[in-house]
Amino acid sequence: MPQPDHISKLGVPDPAGLDDDLQLVWQKCVEKLGFVPNVFSAYSLKPQRLRHFMAMYNDIMLSPSGLSRLEREMVAVVVSSANRCYYCLVAHGAAVRQMSGDPELGEMMALNYRVANIDARQRAMLDYTWKMTTTPYLIDDADRDALRAVGLTNEDIFDLSETIAFFNLSNRMASATDMMPNREYHQQVRTPAPADPKALQRK
Amino acid sequence: MPQPDHISKLGVPDPAGLDDDLQLVWQKCVEKLGFVPNVFSAYSLKPQRLRHFMAMYNDIMLSPSGLSRLEREMVAVVVSSANRCYYCLVAHGAAVRQMSGDPELGEMMALNYRVANIDARQRAMLDYTWKMTTTPYLIDDADRDALRAVGLTNEDIFDLSETIAFFNLSNRMASATDMMPNREYHQQVRTPAPADPKALQRK
Amino acid sequence: MPQPDHISKLGVPDPAGLDDDLQLVWQKCVEKLGFVPNVFSAYSLKPQRLRHFMAMYNDIMLSPSGLSRLEREMVAVVVSSANRCYYCLVAHGAAVRQMSGDPELGEMMALNYRVANIDARQRAMLDYTWKMTTTPYLIDDADRDALRAVGLTNEDIFDLSETIAFFNLSNRMASATDMMPNREYHQQVRTPAPADPKALQRK
Amino acid sequence: MPQPDHISKLGVPDPAGLDDDLQLVWQKCVEKLGFVPNVFSAYSLKPQRLRHFMAMYNDIMLSPSGLSRLEREMVAVVVSSANRCYYCLVAHGAAVRQMSGDPELGEMMALNYRVANIDARQRAMLDYTWKMTTTPYLIDDADRDALRAVGLTNEDIFDLSETIAFFNLSNRMASATDMMPNREYHQQVRTPAPADPKALQRK
Amino acid sequence: MPQPDHISKLGVPDPAGLDDDLQLVWQKCVEKLGFVPNVFSAYSLKPQRLRHFMAMYNDIMLSPSGLSRLEREMVAVVVSSANRCYYCLVAHGAAVRQMSGDPELGEMMALNYRVANIDARQRAMLDYTWKMTTTPYLIDDADRDALRAVGLTNEDIFDLSETIAFFNLSNRMASATDMMPNREYHQQVRTPAPADPKALQRK
Amino acid sequence: MPQPDHISKLGVPDPAGLDDDLQLVWQKCVEKLGFVPNVFSAYSLKPQRLRHFMAMYNDIMLSPSGLSRLEREMVAVVVSSANRCYYCLVAHGAAVRQMSGDPELGEMMALNYRVANIDARQRAMLDYTWKMTTTPYLIDDADRDALRAVGLTNEDIFDLSETIAFFNLSNRMASATDMMPNREYHQQVRTPAPADPKALQRK
Repeated sequence: MPQPDHISKLGVPDPAGLDDDLQLVWQKCVEKLGFVPNVFSAYSLKPQRLRHFMAMYNDIMLSPSGLSRLEREMVAVVVSSANRCYYCLVAHGAAVRQMSGDPELGEMMALNYRVANIDARQRAMLDYTWKMTTTPYLIDDADRDALRAVGLTNEDIFDLSETIAFFNLSNRMASATDMMPNREYHQQVRTPAPADPKALQRK
Repeated sequence: MPQPDHISKLGVPDPAGLDDDLQLVWQKCVEKLGFVPNVFSAYSLKPQRLRHFMAMYNDIMLSPSGLSRLEREMVAVVVSSANRCYYCLVAHGAAVRQMSGDPELGEMMALNYRVANIDARQRAMLDYTWKMTTTPYLIDDADRDALRAVGLTNEDIFDLSETIAFFNLSNRMASATDMMPNREYHQQVRTPAPADPKALQRK
Repeated sequence: MPQPDHISKLGVPDPAGLDDDLQLVWQKCVEKLGFVPNVFSAYSLKPQRLRHFMAMYNDIMLSPSGLSRLEREMVAVVVSSANRCYYCLVAHGAAVRQMSGDPELGEMMALNYRVANIDARQRAMLDYTWKMTTTPYLIDDADRDALRAVGLTNEDIFDLSETIAFFNLSNRMASATDMMPNREYHQQVRTPAPADPKALQRK
Repeated sequence: MPQPDHISKLGVPDPAGLDDDLQLVWQKCVEKLGFVPNVFSAYSLKPQRLRHFMAMYNDIMLSPSGLSRLEREMVAVVVSSANRCYYCLVAHGAAVRQMSGDPELGEMMALNYRVANIDARQRAMLDYTWKMTTTPYLIDDADRDALRAVGLTNEDIFDLSETIAFFNLSNRMASATDMMPNREYHQQVRTPAPADPKALQRK
Repeated sequence: MPQPDHISKLGVPDPAGLDDDLQLVWQKCVEKLGFVPNVFSAYSLKPQRLRHFMAMYNDIMLSPSGLSRLEREMVAVVVSSANRCYYCLVAHGAAVRQMSGDPELGEMMALNYRVANIDARQRAMLDYTWKMTTTPYLIDDADRDALRAVGLTNEDIFDLSETIAFFNLSNRMASATDMMPNREYHQQVRTPAPADPKALQRK
Repeated sequence: MPQPDHISKLGVPDPAGLDDDLQLVWQKCVEKLGFVPNVFSAYSLKPQRLRHFMAMYNDIMLSPSGLSRLEREMVAVVVSSANRCYYCLVAHGAAVRQMSGDPELGEMMALNYRVANIDARQRAMLDYTWKMTTTPYLIDDADRDALRAVGLTNEDIFDLSETIAFFNLSNRMASATDMMPNREYHQQVRTPAPADPKALQRK
């Protein structure tokens, strides 16, 4: 019962054949993370698509925002929980654990965010995340107002919504390819650790 | 009862203040379409995000693929039908009518694709579209095999899946902003017209 | 890809063989509308059933009521949206456009009524319509009281409910027969036009 | 805890004020059944609507058909089970018990038809009933073919579908009015009895 | 069409081969009820499991509690209604009729508890029952507080929850075995009768 | 953001006040596991109920069966995944990791069992688990036959079903009390380890 036996059910091209810019990305991943995330390998079936995916991802998840980087990862995991996306739950669950230093927070986001001991602002954000993911057609002025009531600006609502929207995209690419996460994620930050202060900053 | 009274419930910046590259996009849209699609106006609240959105959109919808451009628009509309996204149903429903010259095909995609008189390959693609949009976690080898059985390659399945995934993103941005489509779409190609031969090509 | 190739998947009898009273109905339809609505053709498989259907339809949709004729058509379209009924969305969507002179209002009712710029009374009626169609067993005193709070009398609630109930019947007959709407509907009132003042009257 | 305290939450007019034709209906009901079914009382709020309702009902449920009268009552109860309609489950559950002489068959139709010991033709009809009631937009050629495979003609499929459609109407009128069934139904045919041979006939 | 033809689709061992303690249970059932409930026969496929099932059942349903025995039976029936469990609806519907002496109350619990004329405390308990059965992951502090607001203590909430939980277990065993209820239940207490005063007591 | 701040939202009695038999259980847990599982603490609000719960649990999960102990834990986790039960996913996910020595298998069961690399027999068992948990009323002869086709006997189907049924009970008790798992589970067996041979045995 060894898990898993593939990266993508649509096949993965030999990385040696990738263009130089992508080879450089691979190299930097190995330096920084110790491995190339399988989402990049799976997406490299269509290299230009991978470039757009990475550019959008980096801007949404890493650029300054009224949502901290940890909060964006929490949103990513709750979207993936609603969609039951194995790849994203494993990879971004690890990110929540790493950024927060709180191994249980990552599990709560993945399994049922309603049990987490979080403040009203984060709870409102995650309730919006769930509703937007599962029944986007029911989103109405009342939902935007509930976010404003806990302090979000229009730009924050845009950022929150695009994070949700992006993971509704990436969850489906993972399901389409039966994408398997790198094994390294599973053991990361399983005991309490210091939080990453930069990941907690809100611009 | 004049419809509608806004473009985005999160506000739209004055286009005069946009960077030159975006001003140029606005100008080209007016030249080509007669108007700037409201999705661009709504997204210009965060100009860099708009750039990524346009780059990804253009590559997915316009670059050569085993799916014709019309087929990708049909997929866009069926995703938006499952998500009941008003903006995308209006804008991409018009695109289906324009590319196919078949005003009823656009309505069928928007209202219930199961009534359309399409071939087995397109029906399989749209059944996959519906399932991937509504219950992505149930997608399994059998679903990929059903697409292969009607002739799709792994690259075609990638393209189909990314089209589905992208509109699951854009539907949610439209719902988040209560985005209203430009009025011009409503009257486009309401009587049978010649199809656009380029939109029917599969590379 | 010519759409469609049939009126009803259960077959349509030759109209020349119909009884005189129905022949007269056919004749009046052609005079008034330019065509015989396909729902009549499909239903003529069982002529006596057609008579009951027409009698009930005319009384519900055309007789004096606290709901305007336009409002009853809006309700018809929202029921059909919940049930994703192609025939009724096309035929009654056209009726909303014609009566209101507002081409966008028809599309909004068909695609997602929540985006429409309507008053609180109509919104309450359509929220009730959606709930009654999708989860009738959850209707409770609170739902009736919400209608009374926006001014509906018990007779108005009866009329609203029977309109909803009737289209839950007719949607299913359309799905049962895979009923195709007449092509003429698609191009009706796609540009703004004067409203029909009689259709706006509430008795 | 006396059950119930009303007939309709929208009010019931004094029967003494009804027109002569309806007074006659009331009189015949008392003669034949021992009581006036509450659905008539509730519907008499709008007498002309009641006339259409009765005419349609009688034709669908009592006229000759390839479905026996018992089978039409079984369909009525399964629709009402899917919609969890208290009035129709009580009144038509009693009809199934009375026509079949089988008290358990009525309960099975009301509670979960899948446990009933019925033949493949009836099972196919009830599976279609459930699907048409809960997800009419998924009905497709395959569903009609499954009915043909167990012997139904196009006219039989029409009759079956209209029975389903009609109870989707009447269930909603019962929910709208919180209609309470007459108490007499509850005790009818709770022990095995001879079936009504006329109710088993298929024309 | 004689209903039914089996007790359990997984088979029922000869009761003569059961251990003495179970033989005694069988004997007492016959003395007290006139028959051995089929749930015992079905469960006797694994005798030790039956012992645990009976011990847990008796403690939950019969021991002193802030919920009356009738209320616990009402909860049992509403769980079974949500799960559409034929066996439990028949057997425990009869128990509600017998304990309350109100034949309609049993039907209401089985078919749609929302129509019953019960007090706010019981309604809150049954709303919680429905939600806990169908979407347990949405239960939150607000749900517990709603029960406290109508007078339930923490112990009462425990008892209510365990009753709900237990019938979510037993409903599934009934579905797994296609368990058929004893015929005797169907005719019990179909006319109003005195309530069982002991069944109404709250400790 | 320390997680969590409680064991049960209904309160936990001082263990010093428990009867001797339960004190002994507590003591043995500490000896064997290093801690008392919080489910016991939460359930000790009603000590007699805890005794029944433990007796049933031990018999279902530990006694000889055609399903291995690991398989029963896999079933427990898949039920809890469908119900999104935080407590049971954490505690029994750890059990799957420990028994199998495969840290990824535990995650797969918790997040989406369909991605796991398991044999057809286990896949059939888990498909049945999902359906029985989410829509028990749809279980039919075809579902039992699918289990028999991969080698399950009637006794095995009973055991499988009771495991599913039991976790549908315990998930709801965990949701009712907002039960928090012991922290120790989170770090158990996060790297590959030898499987527990006894846990793989099928009697």
